[in-house]
Amino acid sequence: MSEVDPDIQDEKARKRLIELAEKFYDQFEGGDVPSMEIPTRTKTNIVFDEESGVWVLGDRTSTRSANSVRGAKKLLKSIYTTEFLERQLEENRSSTLRELYYLSESWDNEHAQFDNQDESNQLIEDLELVSGVTREDFHMRPEESGAKVMGPLHIREQTNRGDRDIHCQDDVGQGGYQIPNNPDTIEFLGCDAEFILCVETGGMRDRLVENGFDDDYDCLVVHLGGQPARATRRLTKRLHDELDLPVAVFTDGDPWSYRIYGSVAYGSIKSAHLSEYLATPEAQFVGIRPQDITEYDLPSDPLADSDTNALESELEDPRFQTDFWEEQIQHQLDIGKKSEQQALAARGLDFVTDEYLPTRLDEMGIL
Amino acid sequence: MSEVDPDIQDEKARKRLIELAEKFYDQFEGGDVPSMEIPTRTKTNIVFDEESGVWVLGDRTSTRSANSVRGAKKLLKSIYTTEFLERQLEENRSSTLRELYYLSESWDNEHAQFDNQDESNQLIEDLELVSGVTREDFHMRPEESGAKVMGPLHIREQTNRGDRDIHCQDDVGQGGYQIPNNPDTIEFLGCDAEFILCVETGGMRDRLVENGFDDDYDCLVVHLGGQPARATRRLTKRLHDELDLPVAVFTDGDPWSYRIYGSVAYGSIKSAHLSEYLATPEAQFVGIRPQDITEYDLPSDPLADSDTNALESELEDPRFQTDFWEEQIQHQLDIGKKSEQQALAARGLDFVTDEYLPTRLDEMGIL
Repeated sequence: MSEVDPDIQDEKARKRLIELAEKFYDQFEGGDVPSMEIPTRTKTNIVFDEESGVWVLGDRTSTRSANSVRGAKKLLKSIYTTEFLERQLEENRSSTLRELYYLSESWDNEHAQFDNQDESNQLIEDLELVSGVTREDFHMRPEESGAKVMGPLHIREQTNRGDRDIHCQDDVGQGGYQIPNNPDTIEFLGCDAEFILCVETGGMRDRLVENGFDDDYDCLVVHLGGQPARATRRLTKRLHDELDLPVAVFTDGDPWSYRIYGSVAYGSIKSAHLSEYLATPEAQFVGIRPQDITEYDLPSDPLADSDTNALESELEDPRFQTDFWEEQIQHQLDIGKKSEQQALAARGLDFVTDEYLPTRLDEMGIL
Repeated sequence: MSEVDPDIQDEKARKRLIELAEKFYDQFEGGDVPSMEIPTRTKTNIVFDEESGVWVLGDRTSTRSANSVRGAKKLLKSIYTTEFLERQLEENRSSTLRELYYLSESWDNEHAQFDNQDESNQLIEDLELVSGVTREDFHMRPEESGAKVMGPLHIREQTNRGDRDIHCQDDVGQGGYQIPNNPDTIEFLGCDAEFILCVETGGMRDRLVENGFDDDYDCLVVHLGGQPARATRRLTKRLHDELDLPVAVFTDGDPWSYRIYGSVAYGSIKSAHLSEYLATPEAQFVGIRPQDITEYDLPSDPLADSDTNALESELEDPRFQTDFWEEQIQHQLDIGKKSEQQALAARGLDFVTDEYLPTRLDEMGIL
């Protein structure tokens, strides 16, 4: 069922890195000053791609050239990093962004060493952009760890100590299946799920698992754990695309949680070059919706100034300019309240699984 | 091999709750104003218990009596909460601290409802104290999630959908085995490990797993993920006590990380009533030690003022008043530097597993 073969991915990534290096050789040979063209990553250079339904980078680029000391140093660092990544792939190893930064201290050329981790992080993003290969395919692991899955899904994970066949209900403890840093090592063997429910908080995730929601409704409960890691978003996208499962996102009812939904559905400006790899534009927002605070009379807290500002900034954000979001955000500004997922417990511990979710998911056409 | 039977634990916890309620009945019947005696939880009321080697609460207590409106309300809340917990155990359910707070809104007596979550959290700690039963045995789940284990350990976890037999290398993905909220549901079926290595950061945990350190050295790699959850500390303690495994703690080299070591080894003031349940006083500190920063010439950052203050406060802390810690902390104040675990990568990605850990663990008598 899976479309991804990690070995082929590795070979592709290596090839792209070597091509990058070849470009520099060609420039030298032709008597040109080496340079690299990089798409500009700013708010003004993201555009909505109608075809894929995600926000991607526009056409604007900037040039990094060796005709200044600063530019030359940047290119030197790119070359050392490219060589490191190529060797890492060759040896089938991996490392973290932080390790890369520290590792540069062992490089023989002092000018190639990074001044701080922002610089090395930035460079990896640049290399993703110019090569079209993701960080994960360079075997750069994130510090952020992937979250957990519980539900009727049978997977095979390629680990560095062999393949593991795991059923995400029968072969795992109450804590569920831990998503690896690179979910493209996962092959889907079988799936009895009807949809995916991404859940913001650990408390609500545990509630759904204890109440057997994944079992009763044939649902994959994916724990986001706040702002979701790339691994979590990537797996969600793959489950959606490859297994044709609808995605519903269930968060707290405040502007920060709407951004969590946004990062699953639209991606972020920072990773706009990866939207097609990470974003699931078909993902729908379950709640907590401002209308729920009113309709269910949920326990709530007053909006802080920072909440109000964040809501107002969302009203300006092209990704939230839909009738649904404008209505919800306006309503929230009117009532001046926010509520958490677990506030549903005010109606009893089973209200969320017996009433709230079935009703809402039915309305949304998912059940 | 396991000493813990969850069903017996549940029954014991229920009995203690009923005893608490009976005490109030007896007081009423005897014509006394109902009251509850609670050990005082302050810095001045913790004492070192020679026998268990941990810091526990001293003899000072305070009395909560119904002879004031405030006291009467507190006792009313205690009674409602006791009833809720008793029913929860009876029905073999569980809930989070946050859910309890929200749930109180559904209670029929308005005076029994909590004003804020601090109040309900505090009450649960009070009930732990007076009943001698832990929060986990009340089936109160934490929001904080347990971390992950990788290594030659074979466990059986009692989940709410049946038992699961899991080998923490052969049956899990690269992410490892996810520790459940209540690790007393785990039975140890078999163990080929020689020691436990608790690791602070995800990046270092992944490095050790990728390099096969758990396999090469028969080691259980426990990922702490910053300040460790109670579940993680409890499992570490059980592995130490029941399987007789030495515990080594590997963190960044700064005062905040020494506190992470401290929470594994000594427990905290907040949970001093649980030290015997959570703390592993035999746990040893691997590093990063200030001496390592000097000896290995590690990449470092200068100490911030807050770091210096934290180090000075540790020098005053009875739990850090050993020759080892005084020497290390003094050395760190002298050099004015701190380093992270991953700074070891400056000597190559394998330095930590080929050199640093084997040498240090050998010196410590663990290898």
